[in-house]
Amino acid sequence: MIEAGIIGGAGYTGLELLRLLLMHPGVEISVVTSRRYKGKKVSSVNPHLAPFIELEYEDVDTEEIANRSDIVFAAVPHGSAMDYVPELIASGAKVIDLSADYRLKKEEYERIYKREHRDKEEREAVYGLTELHPEVKDADLVANPGCYPTGAILAVAPLVKEGLVSHVVFDAKSGVSGAGAEPSETSHYPNLAENIIPYQITEHRHVAEMRMELNVKVSFTPHVIPSIRGILTTAHVFLSTEETMTHDEIEEIYKRFYTSKRFIRLREGIPSLSAVRGTNFCDIGFGIDTVNARIVAISAIDNLVKGGSGQAIQNMNVMFGLEEEAGLWFPGLVP
Amino acid sequence: MIEAGIIGGAGYTGLELLRLLLMHPGVEISVVTSRRYKGKKVSSVNPHLAPFIELEYEDVDTEEIANRSDIVFAAVPHGSAMDYVPELIASGAKVIDLSADYRLKKEEYERIYKREHRDKEEREAVYGLTELHPEVKDADLVANPGCYPTGAILAVAPLVKEGLVSHVVFDAKSGVSGAGAEPSETSHYPNLAENIIPYQITEHRHVAEMRMELNVKVSFTPHVIPSIRGILTTAHVFLSTEETMTHDEIEEIYKRFYTSKRFIRLREGIPSLSAVRGTNFCDIGFGIDTVNARIVAISAIDNLVKGGSGQAIQNMNVMFGLEEEAGLWFPGLVP
Amino acid sequence: MIEAGIIGGAGYTGLELLRLLLMHPGVEISVVTSRRYKGKKVSSVNPHLAPFIELEYEDVDTEEIANRSDIVFAAVPHGSAMDYVPELIASGAKVIDLSADYRLKKEEYERIYKREHRDKEEREAVYGLTELHPEVKDADLVANPGCYPTGAILAVAPLVKEGLVSHVVFDAKSGVSGAGAEPSETSHYPNLAENIIPYQITEHRHVAEMRMELNVKVSFTPHVIPSIRGILTTAHVFLSTEETMTHDEIEEIYKRFYTSKRFIRLREGIPSLSAVRGTNFCDIGFGIDTVNARIVAISAIDNLVKGGSGQAIQNMNVMFGLEEEAGLWFPGLVP
Amino acid sequence: MIEAGIIGGAGYTGLELLRLLLMHPGVEISVVTSRRYKGKKVSSVNPHLAPFIELEYEDVDTEEIANRSDIVFAAVPHGSAMDYVPELIASGAKVIDLSADYRLKKEEYERIYKREHRDKEEREAVYGLTELHPEVKDADLVANPGCYPTGAILAVAPLVKEGLVSHVVFDAKSGVSGAGAEPSETSHYPNLAENIIPYQITEHRHVAEMRMELNVKVSFTPHVIPSIRGILTTAHVFLSTEETMTHDEIEEIYKRFYTSKRFIRLREGIPSLSAVRGTNFCDIGFGIDTVNARIVAISAIDNLVKGGSGQAIQNMNVMFGLEEEAGLWFPGLVP
Repeated sequence: MIEAGIIGGAGYTGLELLRLLLMHPGVEISVVTSRRYKGKKVSSVNPHLAPFIELEYEDVDTEEIANRSDIVFAAVPHGSAMDYVPELIASGAKVIDLSADYRLKKEEYERIYKREHRDKEEREAVYGLTELHPEVKDADLVANPGCYPTGAILAVAPLVKEGLVSHVVFDAKSGVSGAGAEPSETSHYPNLAENIIPYQITEHRHVAEMRMELNVKVSFTPHVIPSIRGILTTAHVFLSTEETMTHDEIEEIYKRFYTSKRFIRLREGIPSLSAVRGTNFCDIGFGIDTVNARIVAISAIDNLVKGGSGQAIQNMNVMFGLEEEAGLWFPGLVP
Repeated sequence: MIEAGIIGGAGYTGLELLRLLLMHPGVEISVVTSRRYKGKKVSSVNPHLAPFIELEYEDVDTEEIANRSDIVFAAVPHGSAMDYVPELIASGAKVIDLSADYRLKKEEYERIYKREHRDKEEREAVYGLTELHPEVKDADLVANPGCYPTGAILAVAPLVKEGLVSHVVFDAKSGVSGAGAEPSETSHYPNLAENIIPYQITEHRHVAEMRMELNVKVSFTPHVIPSIRGILTTAHVFLSTEETMTHDEIEEIYKRFYTSKRFIRLREGIPSLSAVRGTNFCDIGFGIDTVNARIVAISAIDNLVKGGSGQAIQNMNVMFGLEEEAGLWFPGLVP
Repeated sequence: MIEAGIIGGAGYTGLELLRLLLMHPGVEISVVTSRRYKGKKVSSVNPHLAPFIELEYEDVDTEEIANRSDIVFAAVPHGSAMDYVPELIASGAKVIDLSADYRLKKEEYERIYKREHRDKEEREAVYGLTELHPEVKDADLVANPGCYPTGAILAVAPLVKEGLVSHVVFDAKSGVSGAGAEPSETSHYPNLAENIIPYQITEHRHVAEMRMELNVKVSFTPHVIPSIRGILTTAHVFLSTEETMTHDEIEEIYKRFYTSKRFIRLREGIPSLSAVRGTNFCDIGFGIDTVNARIVAISAIDNLVKGGSGQAIQNMNVMFGLEEEAGLWFPGLVP
Repeated sequence: MIEAGIIGGAGYTGLELLRLLLMHPGVEISVVTSRRYKGKKVSSVNPHLAPFIELEYEDVDTEEIANRSDIVFAAVPHGSAMDYVPELIASGAKVIDLSADYRLKKEEYERIYKREHRDKEEREAVYGLTELHPEVKDADLVANPGCYPTGAILAVAPLVKEGLVSHVVFDAKSGVSGAGAEPSETSHYPNLAENIIPYQITEHRHVAEMRMELNVKVSFTPHVIPSIRGILTTAHVFLSTEETMTHDEIEEIYKRFYTSKRFIRLREGIPSLSAVRGTNFCDIGFGIDTVNARIVAISAIDNLVKGGSGQAIQNMNVMFGLEEEAGLWFPGLVP
């Protein structure tokens, strides 16, 4: 059994790791930390986890976490993970960081996140978009992708790889759980119900990951929708070629690119959020707009699973030589 | 492996059986019927089930269904199941009927459902409220309880058994999936969102099951809430005794009654729907109103799982000597 | 023009007063206070009110508010209104208090709200359930009813007045705006969506108003539903008489009681929240359960209008001899 | 008083005309037609309109409608309005057609809507985007714009007029009332809640109106969101100039263009749907993405008001020389 520790087990990312890892056939939770709930039973703070977990939240030092764990999931805010990672790695644990701290080159990170990077090492983290980065299997440190980049990159990577793309406009719609477990103006029911809230409309930080992975011109605008979970990404893909391609040709490009990638489901119709609810799937569909030389590609993910904790577990599976689907292979909650 | 057939595999009850049985370690789906979708792949009609099922919907005769199955789930409307059950039983299959056709005594059924019961046999069906009816294990025919009776009966059975109850007012609030997969006035988003819709406020048919099981005075009023899943039942329990009981005494009564019933979770706080979402749990909490000699007991279930297909599988597990939790033991989708 | 001041103009009660009073043909807003937003334009804090109001939020002393106003609406939390009312009255303003501070007898208030009542006078406030208290027209101080009591009392008052009622169980379902404009655990979208949350299930403070007005045995349990606005009250009315009454007889009792009460709409069918959305109407319907000698009466109101600010304005209209419907006579926002 | 007739008074467009016109100080409803509800009281089919309307639904011939009305609103489906308009005009009524039948040039209409245009006249309809078409005031026939074009065109018209725009990607999110009052797969609560549904992702018919009015390259993709009302349009505007413009310069362009257009509210922040709920306002905000020479302009309207019946009444006001705001001047329903 793999011993897995979770730093930050009371936020949505941590809770989703728990929900999934508790059912994982090859994993045992070794430690779950929370300063706020230290000493309380995880299942009394989160009744949906009863009676699946007996542990209490702890607040122990980093070395001890590493010693008790084969792998540690850092489910803490951006800017905080970098305080744990060096010591975890030094103590011999593998690490999957669900924050942004190791996704970008250090200078890029400091520019975008407007803070100093306190990790003094030049550390080789693998960007954990599992389908695109097989080198995850040899990684000691995986930087788990942001939720928006996951949906956006997967939607268009096959077209980009073929050199077809000159510019992509990603218009993304996210469930509000992406904003965290803490009540806020945006998550206040009377503000969000019967509404849709655009934010950071010209300069969201996640765009840096999209540009790093895709290397094409990227525009991005996110919105919060009245849904708990899910990100639907509408990718308006403008082609670099004048040549018209058929639906079959485009489909073939997607199929080839995603051969044997079992969490990617190419859909004949247009995907929406319900079929991926609670799962690690990324559903993708597309249409061709010949008037504008535009392909509209739509991807749907669960932001907390494929867009976060599920992909982290997928990465763990790859790192430890388990089946990539272990603990993640079940259908969505429909209806 | 148990071979399980599903009659009526395109409605919400049938789909939920599929979602759960496809993950069940001891079951293989042998046949799924649907007249409407005959010949279509189950997973192309229901993309959330891809790639978990390869079968097509079929429209085959009852005997063949029985021959291909160890157990058959009848997930068809009230009044229709009775056309399948006699032949299924005669052909040697065990049957779990998710309709109302075998829940009540025949005369009672005909009075309440205002139709003739066409099954000519006096058939011994076991009422499949699993926690209350251990005789499920020897049954060939289980009448799976209604969604409302499941939540209502479980909320108060321990108090009733102690002889404490003179009258219960069940005020129930159900997610709209209980009204089925077919679009209707009630399920029309602009009608249901930002609303709550009371219906059949004085005489819903499910009250007959509650009276049959509880044998006390029962009042019942159901409402549809803007939620996909779930039934929250508020049981206003009026006591037959003047004697005041403490919270601990009442809790002890519940604990004793539900000892080793692993799907019943007694909650310290007040339950709500989120912790049971997608699961077979029934969460129960209560408070004491000394002014009115009233106990307010609250139960929360997922109407499609414990209130339907999940309980049906729980019954199947018991009938076939499997672990009662097989295929049903996972935490709810929170958030 | 009546000069109207609002103390506490940034909460939902204050905002709803503004939304309605700004359209009122006989009223001019004289002053709106908010400590938090002092000096900011009301319409820049609340863009939906642009360009209807030019005023800024102020933080001025009570006497000045009184001097600038013919009537003052106290839209502040329970326990705070009593700090304003004595001076407002002394300075010659009429007052409508939307908090609980003057609804109950002083000793009752102190017992229920667990705080001292700091108003040293024995003050005669009229309980402003307009349809039941014509003496509002001569009042200087109106205690505007709670949202739950408004829906509950109106649902059953005609039956109670006829001496028909022995016991009522009010099971109420409220939109979350009743919990205020401040984000909280309950109003956090991932907690409330797809859910219904019972709270204070045996002892909510509002029950005191119901008992005061109805003088029968009352049980009460409230729930929060995933809706912004509205309270649907399901009144399970147990009759004191064995005699069966017909639907027509009951209807006649309601019609007679509510003759010329234009905000009460007796409905042939069962009311729900949509038809009253944004309005001062109270829709009422009922059914008879002969098995249990129970009448199920359903009332639907908008908690912020008839359950709060609208009723306050209705009271103001009566106090100043205006048409009772002035500023409040428009249909609901359907769909 | 203007006598106004409504053809098609039972759909959402017709009901919204009723909700608004019943409060309009200068209008009297002369006739409301519905084949389905002929002979029934409008207020018994639609309880939210009681007691504001005494009329019954009628099914009378076109000439009679014209004779009883100064203006007739055609609130019927596309392809049906053209059967009424010629006779209405011939009989001397003015007409506002809320369908698509007269929005486009005849050949364009036939190409896009894939049906023959049965009106044999070459008729001069004015495209009723009131802010952009002052010639509405002399029109006998106004073609009321589509809901999506209204939000889209208003969001970018000032930039287009300045010659700044080379290409716009409109990514629109609509409440489901746009799909009508009839229950459907899309409006089925379990399908839409917790979801967002893209449709006609490359070729929605409304794009023709956008191109006609804007005369720039337009890409358009619509989505249905879990909201009853509202359209939020995210306009990704790609500039034809390399020159960088400041926020103030862009704001100045908007302000100048919309001077004295009282239903357009330029917002400092980013608009969302709540502030326009139930109103005829169009809220607009924007941001500048210098990396991509992109302006992101966001518009928010209520699809049934500014995107339909409200704008129709605004046009009527202009046609009859009333104040443009008559009957439409009130704040949104917030929260």
